[in-house]
Amino acid sequence: MSNNTSQPSPSTDPTPIFEAFRWRYGSNLLTAAVAHFGVFERLAQGPVSEMDLKQHLQLESRPFVVLLTALQAMNMVQRDAEGKFQATEMALEHLDSKKTFYVGDYLGLAADSPEVLDLVERLKTNQPADIDHQGAAFIYRAGVKSAMEQTALARHFTLSLAGRARNVAPALAEKLDLKNVSHLVDVAGGTGIYALALLEKNPHLEVTLVDLPEVLNIAREMAAASPHRDRLHLVEGDMFEWNPDTKVDAFLFSNIFHDWDVTECQNLMRRYSELLEPDGRLIVHDVFLNDALDGPAPIAFYSAALFTLTEGRAYSAGEYRSWMEACGLEVTGPFDTLIHCGILTGKKTKR
Amino acid sequence: MSNNTSQPSPSTDPTPIFEAFRWRYGSNLLTAAVAHFGVFERLAQGPVSEMDLKQHLQLESRPFVVLLTALQAMNMVQRDAEGKFQATEMALEHLDSKKTFYVGDYLGLAADSPEVLDLVERLKTNQPADIDHQGAAFIYRAGVKSAMEQTALARHFTLSLAGRARNVAPALAEKLDLKNVSHLVDVAGGTGIYALALLEKNPHLEVTLVDLPEVLNIAREMAAASPHRDRLHLVEGDMFEWNPDTKVDAFLFSNIFHDWDVTECQNLMRRYSELLEPDGRLIVHDVFLNDALDGPAPIAFYSAALFTLTEGRAYSAGEYRSWMEACGLEVTGPFDTLIHCGILTGKKTKR
Repeated sequence: MSNNTSQPSPSTDPTPIFEAFRWRYGSNLLTAAVAHFGVFERLAQGPVSEMDLKQHLQLESRPFVVLLTALQAMNMVQRDAEGKFQATEMALEHLDSKKTFYVGDYLGLAADSPEVLDLVERLKTNQPADIDHQGAAFIYRAGVKSAMEQTALARHFTLSLAGRARNVAPALAEKLDLKNVSHLVDVAGGTGIYALALLEKNPHLEVTLVDLPEVLNIAREMAAASPHRDRLHLVEGDMFEWNPDTKVDAFLFSNIFHDWDVTECQNLMRRYSELLEPDGRLIVHDVFLNDALDGPAPIAFYSAALFTLTEGRAYSAGEYRSWMEACGLEVTGPFDTLIHCGILTGKKTKR
Repeated sequence: MSNNTSQPSPSTDPTPIFEAFRWRYGSNLLTAAVAHFGVFERLAQGPVSEMDLKQHLQLESRPFVVLLTALQAMNMVQRDAEGKFQATEMALEHLDSKKTFYVGDYLGLAADSPEVLDLVERLKTNQPADIDHQGAAFIYRAGVKSAMEQTALARHFTLSLAGRARNVAPALAEKLDLKNVSHLVDVAGGTGIYALALLEKNPHLEVTLVDLPEVLNIAREMAAASPHRDRLHLVEGDMFEWNPDTKVDAFLFSNIFHDWDVTECQNLMRRYSELLEPDGRLIVHDVFLNDALDGPAPIAFYSAALFTLTEGRAYSAGEYRSWMEACGLEVTGPFDTLIHCGILTGKKTKR
């Protein structure tokens, strides 16, 4: 696929393909809200605080944010001046079953579709989907059965995501200023597509890619034909435990944090901030919700996809910023790359 | 629900709810095109005629139109100057599996979802879904098992659609000029919600609503509280066979044609045109695709919903116009009502 000349950039933006594909999650969440959770019957009683609505719907924080972000992005719910949730005028008239102009029964035609029922189960239990129907998750954590430990599944999922990476990587390399970085660690770097793009753009750079053995096999194949393979170091490791044995100038987390819940994200941020030297950087390359967690719609729907497959969701730049600042990092960004992704950089300041 | 004063109109437009709900069909069709039908590998070879593409995909006309209309509405496919289908620049770069920037594997993550698999089966067989998993269809035709003959199912589906009718009916009554109409037949008129709105607006009007017994039971309940019930005549009949025994000034088909295939639509049009007196009117109240059958997106996705549940799809105003003109009707419209619906009227001219 690659050759010994420069990695090409796509000439067209594939974002509309991802947006069209992910609308299924908007439709499913709206159906779930109307036909399974009675969101609008509760909101018809008046504005309700986040805490009260969460309790009424019996949802934990992660599924609650996923559902309410999407409903706001679809203009069905909004916040009032006090920050309470209320139905929009349209939703109040048409999605409360006690109203004359209720149309929820129409959405109810999909209430028992397998995808909606699965989503409802995910929301209620706050557990990711069972990928292989034998309890394996899409993500990897020691002690939890993971598809990423099974050769065929790891290959399938890793390669399914490779096409997106191939499109986004040139934009990441273009936007990321690595002039003062000699050694970057690509944490859970997957196929190495991002790493190779950074190596291509920065001839002085060395990249260490840390991931699980099954994934490294794929990265090894991908790198085989690259003229930059000598500067790419594939290292086996679980990112929750791995420690570098040489000086690291930057840790890159490309589409990693969104797989994990808030507590785990904060732990990861703390762990890698502590591994940084002064002036070192922790780089988050990910999608960002609005700080108000009310959209934009394509990222709200992507967040639902992440929610169903992982223990995470999409986070706002504000959420990342607060975690970074709590670790003493000085934050710049976000800067857009492609397909809704952007870069947020935290620099370790001197103590 | 209703009282003895006028029927209210909704104060907000519920169209965005229907659009959000129906996007699931866009996502499913795109996934099917990429992951099951190889549409873009064929288009990567160059522009292809409708006939050749249909043959290559092994699709009959109805599923072909549903799929290609949606792909055009999503900007993945377009027609060239000669009318041949070609992939858009974006689709060509990202949805042909031979290309470097292919992202189809990402869509493939949903390739085996039950909804996508069901849609693929519907497209391949050109058969509507099996509503009760015992072979019953959503529509009714003598000799074919229908959900509309089963009390519980008929009730469920009829009432699921009633909310939409309640919203749209006031707009239909407002836009439809029935000054010169004394007797209107509401063919397969369902709940009678449309009929009651027309009676409310036109004090001189008598309406005969023809439908199946299970559906008439619901219409009877709905009409019970209406001050106009004396001018509503509920008559049992199968629209493919029923004949009026008094003079009819207008036949109304509200959301009927889209349940049937082209041949059946033409038959229905011919049958009811012949039943009309000179100056009589055949009124189609339905959604209309663009005449080029390339959108708009919300109707293209609704068309897919109709496709999976019935023997029909959405048609363009141009298609209706050609059928009407073939029956000697003089066509006016379309005029919008609500939730993507509009009115197209064919007037029988003197021979």
